Formats: sequence, C-alpha cells, structure tokens
Amino acid sequence: MADLVGNLLVAQSGGPTAVINASVAGVIQEAGRHPDQIEEIYGGLNGILGILNEDLIDLQEEKRQAIEGLKHTPAAALGTCRYKIDFKKKPEQAAREMDRLFQVFQAHNIRYFFYAGGNDSQDTAHKIHEQAIQRGHEMRIIGVPKTIDNDLPHTDHCPGYGSVIKYSATTVMEIAADVGSMATDDGSCCIIEVMGRGAGWIAAGTVLARRRPGEAPHIILVPEVPFEQDRFLAKVGETVAALRYCIVVVGEGLKNAAGEEIAADKTRLDAFGHPVLSGAAERLADIVAENLRFKTRSVKLGYAQRAAAHCASQTDVEEAAACGEAAVRAAVSGKSGFMVKLVRLQNKPYKWTTDLQALADRPAEVRCVGKGPGRKETVAARPQRRHGFGPPVVAAAILAAVEGGILPPGPNARYRWRVPALPA
Amino acid sequence: MADLVGNLLVAQSGGPTAVINASVAGVIQEAGRHPDQIEEIYGGLNGILGILNEDLIDLQEEKRQAIEGLKHTPAAALGTCRYKIDFKKKPEQAAREMDRLFQVFQAHNIRYFFYAGGNDSQDTAHKIHEQAIQRGHEMRIIGVPKTIDNDLPHTDHCPGYGSVIKYSATTVMEIAADVGSMATDDGSCCIIEVMGRGAGWIAAGTVLARRRPGEAPHIILVPEVPFEQDRFLAKVGETVAALRYCIVVVGEGLKNAAGEEIAADKTRLDAFGHPVLSGAAERLADIVAENLRFKTRSVKLGYAQRAAAHCASQTDVEEAAACGEAAVRAAVSGKSGFMVKLVRLQNKPYKWTTDLQALADRPAEVRCVGKGPGRKETVAARPQRRHGFGPPVVAAAILAAVEGGILPPGPNARYRWRVPALPA
Repeated sequence: MADLVGNLLVAQSGGPTAVINASVAGVIQEAGRHPDQIEEIYGGLNGILGILNEDLIDLQEEKRQAIEGLKHTPAAALGTCRYKIDFKKKPEQAAREMDRLFQVFQAHNIRYFFYAGGNDSQDTAHKIHEQAIQRGHEMRIIGVPKTIDNDLPHTDHCPGYGSVIKYSATTVMEIAADVGSMATDDGSCCIIEVMGRGAGWIAAGTVLARRRPGEAPHIILVPEVPFEQDRFLAKVGETVAALRYCIVVVGEGLKNAAGEEIAADKTRLDAFGHPVLSGAAERLADIVAENLRFKTRSVKLGYAQRAAAHCASQTDVEEAAACGEAAVRAAVSGKSGFMVKLVRLQNKPYKWTTDLQALADRPAEVRCVGKGPGRKETVAARPQRRHGFGPPVVAAAILAAVEGGILPPGPNARYRWRVPALPA
Repeated sequence: MADLVGNLLVAQSGGPTAVINASVAGVIQEAGRHPDQIEEIYGGLNGILGILNEDLIDLQEEKRQAIEGLKHTPAAALGTCRYKIDFKKKPEQAAREMDRLFQVFQAHNIRYFFYAGGNDSQDTAHKIHEQAIQRGHEMRIIGVPKTIDNDLPHTDHCPGYGSVIKYSATTVMEIAADVGSMATDDGSCCIIEVMGRGAGWIAAGTVLARRRPGEAPHIILVPEVPFEQDRFLAKVGETVAALRYCIVVVGEGLKNAAGEEIAADKTRLDAFGHPVLSGAAERLADIVAENLRFKTRSVKLGYAQRAAAHCASQTDVEEAAACGEAAVRAAVSGKSGFMVKLVRLQNKPYKWTTDLQALADRPAEVRCVGKGPGRKETVAARPQRRHGFGPPVVAAAILAAVEGGILPPGPNARYRWRVPALPA
C-alpha cells in the first residue's frame, strides 16, 4: 500500500495566517524527497474552489529559493477560500461537487491530497477521504492544521497561533508603554480588540506581554466568560486608580450573559453564515467613556494581526513547515484520513513533535479557553499555566525578541535617582 | 555668550512616537561631550507638568547602555503630557505657571532646556524663550521636532514620521496580500484607518506599499481632500471589478465637503479641546457594505502605529537622535529660541543634515498635504513625488526590509505554469 504512485495536490483554505505558506513549503519540500511515489506536485488555487474549477498550478517548476521564501510570506500564496461542500443543506449540489472533484483527481492522477486549514477545512478533508474510499479511487488525504484562533481540537496548539500572539502581545507591550507614559489628570484607558471569534485564545495569549505584576494587559476579556459590565467598570476604575491607565484586551466574540455577542452585526453574514463580528473594542470604549469619563481609545488590529509576517514567530514557522512535512511522510507511508497534530514533549526547554489524529475523531465543537461557552469560572490572568496550552514556545520567542532590544530597560518614570525637592 | 555654565533639562511632550526617546538619547549623549558648560543632566517627568511639579530625575546617573537603549524604546521614557500654558484663555494661571517654571529653573540652575514635541510644544518652548529674556534669566532653549503627523512646518519631515509610515505601509502590504489571496464571489474591501488628525501625511505615506501598478493601497483618503461618497464608491467598485478586492487607507480626520469630520465625536474632547476622532474606517466600511454589499472589514491601528518600535525605521532613529544632538550643539554655541529642523540635501542616495529655524517663525497653521484644507485638487497617488516630502529615506528602509525577506517572491495566483485544462 505504501508504494502508491501518482501526483500530489496541495491547497489552502480559510483565513490566512502568517505561516500557512510555511506548511505548503513543508509539503513541497518533503514531496521532493519521495520521487518514487510522488511524480508531479500541483497546487490548487483558492482551495477547494480551485480544484472544482480545475485551477491547478505546477509547483515543481518553482525555484527552490521561492519555495523556501514561502516560509516568510504572509497570506495564502496559493489563494484561499471559505467554501464548504455542504451535504446537509445542499445535498444535491454537494454530490455534484464531489463528482467534479474526483473527475479532476482522476484526470490529473491525484493520489496525494493535502489540505491546510481550520475546522471547516478538516471537515472537508474528512469527507473527501470517505468519498475516495466509497468511490474506490485509491488516494491518501491528510489535513494540515492551520488557524490563528487556536480552536482546533487534538493538537497542542495550531500553527499560526504562535505568530498572532507574538504580534498581538508585542503590540500590547508597545501600546502600554505609550499610554502609560502620557500624564493625564483623570487617567486613560485603551481597549485593544483581537480576533478569535468564539475562542479567546488570542486574547488570552496577549498575557505574555505581562512580565511583571501591574503590567498590561490589565484586563483580558474572552468570549468564553460572559461579560459583566459592572465588574468590568469596577476593574477599570481600580486599575486607573492604581496606575493612572488601564489596557484592556478583548476578543472580538465577547458575549453577554444571554450569550449575545456584544458587537455582532447580525445583518451581515460571512460565507459560512456566521455573523460578522466587529466593534467589540469600540463598544467597550463607549461604555468606559460614558460611565467613567476617562480618556478612552480603541485599537482594532483586524487582518493586520494574522498577516503580520514581519513579526512572525520562528518556532511557529518551523512547526508549520514540520506539519506539512509530516503530512507527506504519513501519506507516502500509507496513511489517509488523518490530521497532523502538534504534540508537546516538554516545557523547559520546549520540545515538540508531530503525530496523527484520525479526521473521524473531530468533535463537533471548536476548542475554547477553559470549559467552553457558558462556564462561570473566571479565566485566570495566566491561562497558559492553568490550561497548559502552547505559549512556552511563543513566550520564549517574545522574550528573545524583547531581550534582543525591542524594549530594553531605560530611564522611565519609576527612575531611582530623583532630584531632591526644593525647600518649601 | 557661548560659555554659559549650568544644568540641562530635557523633557518630552505630546503623543509619543517610536523614536522620541532617540532624541532624548541624542540630547544626553551630546551633553556629555560638553562638560565645561553642562554640569548636570536632568529629565523632566511628563513634560512641562513635571517641571511645574518639580518632578526631575538625574539622567547622568543612568548607564551608558541604558541611554543607548532609549534609541529602540517606544513611548516617552521620561513621561509626557498634553498641557498648554495658555496665555490666551487663562492668562492669570499661565502667568503663575511661568513664575513656577522659572522658580524651578533658578533653583536647579537650569541654563539649557530642550523640549521634544510637536506644534503645541514648540509654541511652549517659544514662550519660555521669550519669558527667559523678559525675566533676565540667561538660558538657552531649543525645540526638538517630534510628531508622527509630520505636520510641523519648516522641517523636511518630522522625526517619528518615517517609522509610522514604515509600520503602516508594511501593514498595508501584509493586509493586501491576505485580502487578495481570499477568493470571494462578490469581492471584498478592507479599510485601514491611520492617524494624523487634519494632516494626511501618514495616509499618503502608505503609498510606499505600492511597488507595482494595481497594488494596494488602491485608494488613499486624506483629510485635505473633501470626501465625496459617490466618487469613492465608484472607485471601490471599479477596483473590485478589476482585482476582486480593494484596500483603502483613510486618515482619521477625513472631512466632507462641509468641512465636518466624517467620524468626529464632538461629545468627547481631548486635553487641548480637540474633538476625539475615531471610527473613520468603521464609517466607510458601513458605507461600502450598505451600498456595494462586498465583504467589508476595517482595521484601526490607533496607538499601535506610533508605538511600533519593533518596526521602526533606522534612518528615523538616526535622524531623531541627530536632532537631539544638534539642539545641544546649538545651545552650547550660544543659540536660543530655535527649533532643530531636518534638511534634505539630495535624494539618490538620500542625504540629510540638520539646521535651525527660529521658533518665532512658526506659522499658526499646521503643515498639511498639498495646499491645505478646502483645496479642490486631488492628491495624487504618489504625493512624495508631487510634494517632495520625506519618503525616499523611508522608502529605502521599507524596500530594504522587503528585499530582506518580508515579502519574497513566491508562487501566487498569478503563477505562470498552469496545468493544462481537461478536454471538455
């Protein structure tokens, strides 16, 4: 079974990350090491859409240097899409689309298919795997994990997550230094909105900016913990009383006790029918300004955070590439219907490896911080300790950057040599 | 006159930039070269407020390495403020404050005063200079230019501006790669809001992201050109028709034909009584979504852009430090009542020097893109060519970063080796 010979197809799906191209590079580079089994290396443009449209490109013609360069290129180099082959809602169309996919697979002798994406994309990979068996088209299908949201089950953390929190935590540190250095009579508050939809991993991960007690972020609001306005305002007030400023990080999907997103615009839906989330920070800024009358500003990082290759985590790049390589190794050894996952071997120093998880094992729910929506317990300020998720690797990357000169110690308002006051 | 002996005081004012600390480092380092004239080196905490409160710190005790580290530290290391000694609106309070300032100057034998800041701060420096003469307190006062907004007259460009547009243009490039890689049926639009108040220099400067025709930013909206909704929507529509996506950069202070800011919240005023500007991108996103029904997202960089030391321009760091050094050199040679300015000597390769401009020469108006508010002429896509402002230096910094690997060429949707289509 291991000596299946044919062509390879790789495609990307869902929102890009800073390192999704590194996974594609890993696939291409590893494929080149198995010339006996993998003949041609194709890329599908814009994910599953490109395969349906037979928009394939020949990646083997690309220069070695360009493939290596992918590891530091943001966005989805092959193009991406949010397109679901929907057997539940549109069974007839889905059946036609599957026919078309396998027509393309057969015509181009695609025997190896790798799909880099998040929850919806792994679901698509699983369906294609099942169809290949049903149709008797011998084929190996492996999913490559990808999402800044870090909400894929089974994997210790997702490729893409390390980079987004390195960038976001760096931004929180820089903004905190800025806001904290401005003297105001009444105090000030800055609210920074990060992505993640219903999962608070990105918001929680910005805690890496807090290297000493009292440092920002002072408040982290995650969608998994219902927003309580009174408690929030009290905490902002206490923080400003103590420090004269307060930095809040909010996940875009923050919900109230009724489970309603405080900033959801239900009149606008994305391609999967999810409501567009925007303005959580703006909404909170209004609440603070109305109730506490501090100088209040908001920042919405939006796409900038997932595209920020200029601030990517090198560990994340390496893990993303390794996931692509592992996918190819699994497939050429005969495996199909799996997703590659990252496994933490130890924390200090951080060591990791890859393993496989059957795509059939995927739970219906995404993975959230703590126990999921509706839980009453407060998410601690240091979720990486309590929940054992990925950050040691990213913390190391951030701290290395910091110690390398981003925020060196310098004179500041807590300076020790004060000039003696004049006699009264 | 050149051999005035006494202590030095340096302070920072207004919104921080990524390089305002580099100017302080320049002042301290140059001061150390003139021990015959400058005895002690003090920093005033939180600008003029710290002097009024006699919050001074001894910078001479700080380690050489910490001072050098200031060149790569964001925010205002000495603390800053937005505080105006207002002789027009509060003449009695202003007179008392001036008395207090000179009480502190005399008590600590301050003979050299350097104030790093923007328009309001240069105005304060000028008033202190005039008062020193009136009061017969021999003293040298030099302003050090600082503002991300680039709206200070006389100087070729402002320290702080190069870094903010390096960061913003890098972000535009990364977001454009991200948005452009997502296939959508209807097209998509992303609107990125940058700072600058009434001046469009930051928005205009993001044009550096556009290295080839058709690249982002596709539309730049500056406050100096009245916003015309119909024209804007037509241009977004044309761009999406041609490219399937459109990246818009908008300056926060964008105004309509009546001169009203499209996103001003007049119920909230900052410390100088200016209305808080927020939400220009959100407002435009609503306009696009309502009228064109594209997938539309907004990004509001806010404080992140001026604090982004992790993406500072090295040229900007060097120019900022040089302005601090030049201020001290001017003062010890007997000058007072001047602002340091940057002078462009040539473009290719970029060469610059510093010079002095009398603080009395400052016009009442800030410097805007083109001819100022109300002008009818469209700001071209390449303002640096038409208006001769700073970007060659910054362009070089960005291009160096790009060529160094941020966005290397790689396979993308315009790939050349397409797999032949199947026979129909």
